[in-house]
Amino acid sequence: MAERDGQAMRLGLVGIGKIARDQHIPAITADPRFTLVATASRNAELEGVPGHTDIAGLIAGGHDLDAVSLCTPPAGRHAIACAAIDAGLHVMLEKPPAATLSEIEDLAGRARDRGVTLFATWHSREAAGVEPARAWLAGRRIDRVRITWKEDIRRWHPGQEWILAAGGFGVFDPGINALSILTRIMPRPVMLEAARMSMPRGRQSPIAASLTMRSGDTPVEAEFDFLQTGPQSWDIEIETDQGTLLLAMGGSIITLPGGAPIEAPDAEYPRLYARFAELVASGQSDVDVAPLRLIADAALVAERAEAEAFAF
Amino acid sequence: MAERDGQAMRLGLVGIGKIARDQHIPAITADPRFTLVATASRNAELEGVPGHTDIAGLIAGGHDLDAVSLCTPPAGRHAIACAAIDAGLHVMLEKPPAATLSEIEDLAGRARDRGVTLFATWHSREAAGVEPARAWLAGRRIDRVRITWKEDIRRWHPGQEWILAAGGFGVFDPGINALSILTRIMPRPVMLEAARMSMPRGRQSPIAASLTMRSGDTPVEAEFDFLQTGPQSWDIEIETDQGTLLLAMGGSIITLPGGAPIEAPDAEYPRLYARFAELVASGQSDVDVAPLRLIADAALVAERAEAEAFAF
Repeated sequence: MAERDGQAMRLGLVGIGKIARDQHIPAITADPRFTLVATASRNAELEGVPGHTDIAGLIAGGHDLDAVSLCTPPAGRHAIACAAIDAGLHVMLEKPPAATLSEIEDLAGRARDRGVTLFATWHSREAAGVEPARAWLAGRRIDRVRITWKEDIRRWHPGQEWILAAGGFGVFDPGINALSILTRIMPRPVMLEAARMSMPRGRQSPIAASLTMRSGDTPVEAEFDFLQTGPQSWDIEIETDQGTLLLAMGGSIITLPGGAPIEAPDAEYPRLYARFAELVASGQSDVDVAPLRLIADAALVAERAEAEAFAF
Repeated sequence: MAERDGQAMRLGLVGIGKIARDQHIPAITADPRFTLVATASRNAELEGVPGHTDIAGLIAGGHDLDAVSLCTPPAGRHAIACAAIDAGLHVMLEKPPAATLSEIEDLAGRARDRGVTLFATWHSREAAGVEPARAWLAGRRIDRVRITWKEDIRRWHPGQEWILAAGGFGVFDPGINALSILTRIMPRPVMLEAARMSMPRGRQSPIAASLTMRSGDTPVEAEFDFLQTGPQSWDIEIETDQGTLLLAMGGSIITLPGGAPIEAPDAEYPRLYARFAELVASGQSDVDVAPLRLIADAALVAERAEAEAFAF
């Protein structure tokens, strides 16, 4: 680290839920560039690591922090990130980086003013097939893109009522992962042209949606469904003048035209932390709002249709 | 003009509707820095000015154009602006600059790449009271902001069914003017925190809305209503530690604490064209998406409630 002359960065982790335990903690523990020195979580603690109940306690805790990583839900994240930035800490954000675009814009400005690194992560962009796909597509003629992102809300989000509430993103909670890959691999910016959303009676966020997008002259269609039982799909199919490229299983398996599927071990979160370390070392930020902007655009222009009531 | 060594800029006007006739044409005609050399409009022409039916005809028309000004509805504007930028023309856009944020982002990138000026205008920012308000507020403690933007859709938008359709913005079509002023006069960025929208049965855009926003520590509330009969309101009330500033009539009348209302003649569009000339001369663009971003954020997190059906 630039700041510590080769010593590990002293990191605080905020929000100890499933994603923190499954992904963040193993990635941090395995990376010699980081030392996890304390946590903040309303209800949970990690054995052997000093714990606080909120960001204020973490900052005031005398841990000589360099940075924090936020794994709390997007809705309260802006206030937590503000406190960390104001304290001069580098900040890494789970996806989506905040509840709204204007909140992210505000955070980016604050990080700039304070001279700290802000890293808005999109973990699916680190899936094994994404960089090979991007490299293969560069310079090729892309005729059509089709995203099929269909999963069972009851299986992956059991009882998470908030996900269908206002600001919960609904089917875009997983769907934004597809859009984060799309906006990374396409050579041209992606624009939202039209959207249809299926709104369960009495809920505020969509349970299914289809987006019509365009990237340069390439039409991009996306189908998102939260009621998919049986086989689950997290696929992106890209037709080019040299055949069809398929990204399957959320970007982790890539199949090039005429080739066999290539799978590599999952290293999404280790890569995110490696990138965070690089950004801090080089004094840069990485805040790409493109995936969330597409969803906000969809919300802005959508045709909404009522669907039958949903219960978990 | 930098490009013409003191000669007027040769301007094409696209979209000849009410706003073009009421505002753009008088402003262009009065400004010696511009010469209106041709128009494009599906159905209308201006006497004495060569007319085309679309942007392709305008560009190919041999008018030696420097720039175009677009007054068409936001929904088709991206394609028209692309054609103009690709032809190396400077582009001025009526508000809102496009149908979605991703379209504007794409246009800004294209203008950068092509080395032309893109000016996304917000005419209400040029209302007489706006700059005095901004200057007076700078450095003062602002305790609270209240926007009241209530007008009669039947009076101002008779029969305009599209305004309540998907992508029509609904009550935000006028409301975005308030947000363009707000984001100009507040010293800190404005964030959207929560939104409520009233959706007439069978319509896709809101007929009334309330937004809860924040700018730094200052709470900002906005009430938008399209069903206001009797007195119409386009007011912004700003409480500070030194009294309340009132911007009324869409920003054209300013009242400082203890003072009398100050009104100046309307010069919104002349100022926009003056600014466009300056931007072109200095090789700059001005593309501020903040007002539209607040509305997209509102669409993203809104609590929507069904309201009774509306007919013009």
